[in-house]
Amino acid sequence: MTVLVEPIPDRVDLPRGFRAGGLHCGLKKQGQLDLGVLIADQPVAATAVFTKNELIGAHIVVCRDHLLRSNGHVRAILVNARNANCATGTQGIEDARNCCRQLATRLRCPVEQVLMASTGPIGAPLPTERIVSHLDALLRQTTADGGMAFAQAIMTTDTWPKAAAESGTGVAATGFAKGSGMIHPDMATMLGFLLTDARIDPRDGGHSLLGRVAERTFHRVSVDGDTSPNDSLFLLASETSAADASTVEAVLTRTGQRLARFLAADGEGATRLITIQVRGAPDELAAQRVGRVIATSPLVKTAIAGRDPNWGRILAAAGRAGVSFRAERARVWIGSTDVFRDGRPFPGNEPEAHAHLVGSAEIVLGVDLGVGSAQAEVWTCDFTKDYVQINADYRS
Amino acid sequence: MTVLVEPIPDRVDLPRGFRAGGLHCGLKKQGQLDLGVLIADQPVAATAVFTKNELIGAHIVVCRDHLLRSNGHVRAILVNARNANCATGTQGIEDARNCCRQLATRLRCPVEQVLMASTGPIGAPLPTERIVSHLDALLRQTTADGGMAFAQAIMTTDTWPKAAAESGTGVAATGFAKGSGMIHPDMATMLGFLLTDARIDPRDGGHSLLGRVAERTFHRVSVDGDTSPNDSLFLLASETSAADASTVEAVLTRTGQRLARFLAADGEGATRLITIQVRGAPDELAAQRVGRVIATSPLVKTAIAGRDPNWGRILAAAGRAGVSFRAERARVWIGSTDVFRDGRPFPGNEPEAHAHLVGSAEIVLGVDLGVGSAQAEVWTCDFTKDYVQINADYRS
Repeated sequence: MTVLVEPIPDRVDLPRGFRAGGLHCGLKKQGQLDLGVLIADQPVAATAVFTKNELIGAHIVVCRDHLLRSNGHVRAILVNARNANCATGTQGIEDARNCCRQLATRLRCPVEQVLMASTGPIGAPLPTERIVSHLDALLRQTTADGGMAFAQAIMTTDTWPKAAAESGTGVAATGFAKGSGMIHPDMATMLGFLLTDARIDPRDGGHSLLGRVAERTFHRVSVDGDTSPNDSLFLLASETSAADASTVEAVLTRTGQRLARFLAADGEGATRLITIQVRGAPDELAAQRVGRVIATSPLVKTAIAGRDPNWGRILAAAGRAGVSFRAERARVWIGSTDVFRDGRPFPGNEPEAHAHLVGSAEIVLGVDLGVGSAQAEVWTCDFTKDYVQINADYRS
Repeated sequence: MTVLVEPIPDRVDLPRGFRAGGLHCGLKKQGQLDLGVLIADQPVAATAVFTKNELIGAHIVVCRDHLLRSNGHVRAILVNARNANCATGTQGIEDARNCCRQLATRLRCPVEQVLMASTGPIGAPLPTERIVSHLDALLRQTTADGGMAFAQAIMTTDTWPKAAAESGTGVAATGFAKGSGMIHPDMATMLGFLLTDARIDPRDGGHSLLGRVAERTFHRVSVDGDTSPNDSLFLLASETSAADASTVEAVLTRTGQRLARFLAADGEGATRLITIQVRGAPDELAAQRVGRVIATSPLVKTAIAGRDPNWGRILAAAGRAGVSFRAERARVWIGSTDVFRDGRPFPGNEPEAHAHLVGSAEIVLGVDLGVGSAQAEVWTCDFTKDYVQINADYRS
């Protein structure tokens, strides 16, 4: 079953000065795109946020080095699927750097202006030859129309390509992301790419603009609570638009949130996109924390798979987030129906809540902690037997 | 499929001065025991550790009050299954207290010498009438031979009763526990009961002896990462043995560990008991933290369900525990086979690791962080489609 949040577009606009492409180089099954690239016609400002996992993919070591040496200016990001190039030792780092070098030669730019990202199973050597031998063909099909090919090429267990674009507010932003398991804040197994024509400060290292955007987008989606060693979110900015900083942040946040919702909707085995609304929290961080715990609870997520309006599990998950609240003031709703309020359940409302679970592709689960006025939304999906199937069989 | 760690005993010895019993009072399906009791002939020292969830079952409010008022001396613990008496407001607390009062009348003891524990779905009113009307019959069948009936009566989704007894070191200890979903440290949806003839200090409130025992036993088992509002571990001590404190702690820890392993082995849907061995940690707490994260990882647990020696997921889970380690010094083993060492994988060893996953009911997954010398073991189970089935359908 596929949960679509928006129709999959045939094409996606890129901000001016960017091109994209993707092809099959032989990492996935015949005919499936597995090597993608984003290219800027000129060096553009770049910043990135990486996984907080202690185990990190080789591409992250190389990207950090290249961003430092290029003073945050890059021409391209090369992305391969079906191989994480992780836990591959110094050889893996050399392999990633070699791919960057080969692409840089072809773009006639310094090696440090090329970044790379890898995603897929951990532990196998990167098939560098296969990648490098397809770079010329890849560059030939890299165009302003190549966004969807890029979105296809970075997919792993995703069932549909994830791209979102916005313009019209004086800023153009286009984003791409891939999931769809090992998804959890800080960060998901997720690769995310945001392109914009706005001005950014590449020296902020993700700690200001991109950090804030990540916090309200990709850091609020969880499929299974597992983080990956390869999670990376990149922002490339051509800086030809003069939009003010708050407009830029709003556009990037909206684009990121669309992609985050796509990731949750396409979570492995998912049949429902779940938006968790936390209200009445002492502060936004506490609201986010409660939302994440609910989003990670196997009991909540299997209940939704069973279309069971099991508010007790929602309340119990909220209760273990380390945020104080008093059950007698809390409220729980499913869809727009209160199922728990003022310390007591409303069994009479459960049929309506059940109908929401059965009839809607997008489920709303809400909790008001009744202690403050802060709120946050977190996105996840239901937890089905197909998730287990997909992950029990992933490498076979 | 049932994973048995030890054969289920026909009967279990109780320390002298204790009796136990269980019967069917009508909460579960016909013929299934659902109401149990532990009785001490005389008031005995008692202490308890309760859930850290913000949402707490009504029985916990009552137990805390009774332990305080009785100065930690009790005659009985009454336990019902199939109803958590949680999120039931002040009425739920009154219901629990009423059950205690009715039992106290029959035992001719003050109400505060009776404790109660409830387990089952959250949110339905406790059927007090049904419980109270069966108390006389329950007391009639409460004997020194009633341990296994008690173990049966406290089961929810458990597939087998969990009891363990030890004597012969000058201390007698008998323990009971029930799982088997919503299992996670601090604490599992778990009820645990330890009876001993040793001396304890009831005023320690679980912060010393019982706290340390819990830390190395029930706090080291995870089925799904979800904690329950009703988790409770009780210790009753008749204090007729003069064994020294360290012997007592060792016996209680061993008994608790056997029960903890039972809980993991009987985790919902489990086909394998998994022991996670963490070594080379900077301290025991860090080792435990890494073990818990691995034990909670859906990706690790689905891999074991698929018999996939996927060491990359083990390493990635270890990497997000917030404990620093260097992958190039880490080691990962499955069974007794190294699959990752000195920063690189050993694909040639994977068939042997696979054979361990296929052929053993008890799986060992090990990680050496290579940074210190502390270690810890944590117990969990594999994550199968049956877990999803059980929890999607729990209330239907």
